Amino acid sequence: MDELEIYQKQGFGNQSGFGERPALLIVDFVNGFTDADQFGGGNIDAAIQTTKSLLATARATQNPVAFTRVVYADDGSDAGVFCLKAPGLAALTEDAPASQVVDDLTPVHGEYVIRKTQPSAFFGTNLAAWLVAKSVDTVLVTGCTTSGCVRASVIDSMSYNFRTIVVTDGVGDRAMAPHEANLFDMEQKYADLMTAEEVAAKITELAQ
Amino acid sequence: MDELEIYQKQGFGNQSGFGERPALLIVDFVNGFTDADQFGGGNIDAAIQTTKSLLATARATQNPVAFTRVVYADDGSDAGVFCLKAPGLAALTEDAPASQVVDDLTPVHGEYVIRKTQPSAFFGTNLAAWLVAKSVDTVLVTGCTTSGCVRASVIDSMSYNFRTIVVTDGVGDRAMAPHEANLFDMEQKYADLMTAEEVAAKITELAQ
Amino acid sequence: MDELEIYQKQGFGNQSGFGERPALLIVDFVNGFTDADQFGGGNIDAAIQTTKSLLATARATQNPVAFTRVVYADDGSDAGVFCLKAPGLAALTEDAPASQVVDDLTPVHGEYVIRKTQPSAFFGTNLAAWLVAKSVDTVLVTGCTTSGCVRASVIDSMSYNFRTIVVTDGVGDRAMAPHEANLFDMEQKYADLMTAEEVAAKITELAQ
Amino acid sequence: MDELEIYQKQGFGNQSGFGERPALLIVDFVNGFTDADQFGGGNIDAAIQTTKSLLATARATQNPVAFTRVVYADDGSDAGVFCLKAPGLAALTEDAPASQVVDDLTPVHGEYVIRKTQPSAFFGTNLAAWLVAKSVDTVLVTGCTTSGCVRASVIDSMSYNFRTIVVTDGVGDRAMAPHEANLFDMEQKYADLMTAEEVAAKITELAQ
Repeated sequence: MDELEIYQKQGFGNQSGFGERPALLIVDFVNGFTDADQFGGGNIDAAIQTTKSLLATARATQNPVAFTRVVYADDGSDAGVFCLKAPGLAALTEDAPASQVVDDLTPVHGEYVIRKTQPSAFFGTNLAAWLVAKSVDTVLVTGCTTSGCVRASVIDSMSYNFRTIVVTDGVGDRAMAPHEANLFDMEQKYADLMTAEEVAAKITELAQ
Repeated sequence: MDELEIYQKQGFGNQSGFGERPALLIVDFVNGFTDADQFGGGNIDAAIQTTKSLLATARATQNPVAFTRVVYADDGSDAGVFCLKAPGLAALTEDAPASQVVDDLTPVHGEYVIRKTQPSAFFGTNLAAWLVAKSVDTVLVTGCTTSGCVRASVIDSMSYNFRTIVVTDGVGDRAMAPHEANLFDMEQKYADLMTAEEVAAKITELAQ
Repeated sequence: MDELEIYQKQGFGNQSGFGERPALLIVDFVNGFTDADQFGGGNIDAAIQTTKSLLATARATQNPVAFTRVVYADDGSDAGVFCLKAPGLAALTEDAPASQVVDDLTPVHGEYVIRKTQPSAFFGTNLAAWLVAKSVDTVLVTGCTTSGCVRASVIDSMSYNFRTIVVTDGVGDRAMAPHEANLFDMEQKYADLMTAEEVAAKITELAQ
Repeated sequence: MDELEIYQKQGFGNQSGFGERPALLIVDFVNGFTDADQFGGGNIDAAIQTTKSLLATARATQNPVAFTRVVYADDGSDAGVFCLKAPGLAALTEDAPASQVVDDLTPVHGEYVIRKTQPSAFFGTNLAAWLVAKSVDTVLVTGCTTSGCVRASVIDSMSYNFRTIVVTDGVGDRAMAPHEANLFDMEQKYADLMTAEEVAAKITELAQ
């Protein structure tokens, strides 16, 4: 019995569905994650291009949009265990080019840009409160990496009871095996998987 | 370049180390996860036996011990998105046999038993506060499943800046591919991996 | 210049308003807070009677209802700093009569009963997630004490961006000076004040 | 029976005590709270001077120091219910002079400066995690206002099981009645009260 059969037998992998008031969450698509010598590589650049298109639709349909950036203090005063595991993260400071949202996705007025230091977009941030303020019931997740900050954010999004959609071609990772393994885990337990095209169609339909 | 090379090149996978005041966190080793027809299977039973031995050492060395149980309200009033993905979870109610800690690990007086409804042992619980009260700096994680509640708890433990150790033979999963994939992710980014024997030796040494 | 003038001059005390999807939150109306020899006294009993009436309206209009109870572990394993300040709290255990919701307000099927150990109904609980699941945008707060767990819960409710209403005659305290002082603070900075009658009229209107 | 007698009779007002690894938390001593036409007045300036002296001792004894600033996005994208109650808060943006720590307390290298948008220094921030990283067991609180962000931060500090000390002459408020009322509430239920001189003596003793 392979793993999918085990999950099906135990009743995992059901759809949690799409609500009525979605928001788009774009995780860590900053310059440092587009450079394969820093934190990038794999299918991240492709996921940015897919997200660019979905972002245009989200703006056209006036859905709320939030971005995360990894931002540590210039003097390292807030670097913790995560920076012991991956010391390069501490270089992502407020004004470092590596910690700026990529040009293809530059936030516009009214979009929420979150500074974070931990994997989850929710940990130590006001994201949950911002989603409440916007009456959001569904979080559409793109970003990177699938096996890192996307996965952590998806767990928290679901834990806060937002219906959570992972945009399969809008999330990317530096390595493909973890990308695939984490899509499997998330679909079985935390989120529904949809392509950017399916999501764009759905939010366009909702906006009408 | 395989995934390990990519992570090494980008500076992941360093040791975050062991502190001086560890606690043992035992995630979801309840009856429902020992039954392959419910949520169990794979190497979970073996991980319980390994944890039984480590728990004896933790007790002998007077380290704090916490357990989690999944507990939903009898009337389903707190069932949310997680129960849409995996409806069987809602059967884990306060008095259900499936939601009781397994006999081999029965908590003793003064050990902290946490009710939770979400993957992470920290989400919607007082675990972080309990660890602060005990002046813990290092969280030793056993439990199940590696790819589910263990992984989610490890991310939060690290995010709260507890040095976090995944006990490789004390965590189990219903399926081996996700078990292995999640050990890889956790070691690269969130936690150090140690065997139960290595952890037992370390906490014995610290207690002297 | 008295304090109200100072607050007005600095622009505090505006109305945050009433949304469209309210929930009723009933804080710590358990037996131990109806006994003046334990944690009760003052206007708490009167506030319970007022809440009884408002609860009937909330049920009739099918608004979500949540209750909190203070519940510590039988063995004191989760007693922390709060129990150093007020040791009597640790007696509020799962089955203690003092920690049961008062008879006048007995929860019915589907209402959410939250165990908590800290002042705020949100701290270490899944209340925020439950409110998200119900698409709530407005939290109506009754309970006790005004200067304790009500105030703490109101701060968190507002911090999560729920529009928050303190039901002035549905909250009670063991002593009147703190009751009044905390109503002042909450109105100036965190919540709107309304009587139970005003709230009942509003939710009846919304339900139509 | 006055309120103090009621609290004593019910067992409130005990000392939670001083631990071994304190940190100093300085809440919202930014320029906007020194100006009586904006958010200042009362005894805030005096509390800043007292804090200046205590900060010197905390630095000399090498205790961790954290500051909070209120910081909203320039475009108001993260303004929520708090800004409905007090619209002037939204002017406290990253580069606004009003949101900079006052000159008398300028943070030095390695001190942690927290951006926050809600009353509590813990809400939507990494303060709890930073305190864990520093193995802190006791939080010494100065700042403003006593009845606002100090009180909210103290509740959360205690809820996370940090022993919490309110420095009575290091906290200030724009109006004296709320200042006094909130010191009463905090001493009875959440924190011990000490003067800056008492705290300085204690941390000097601990450092030896």
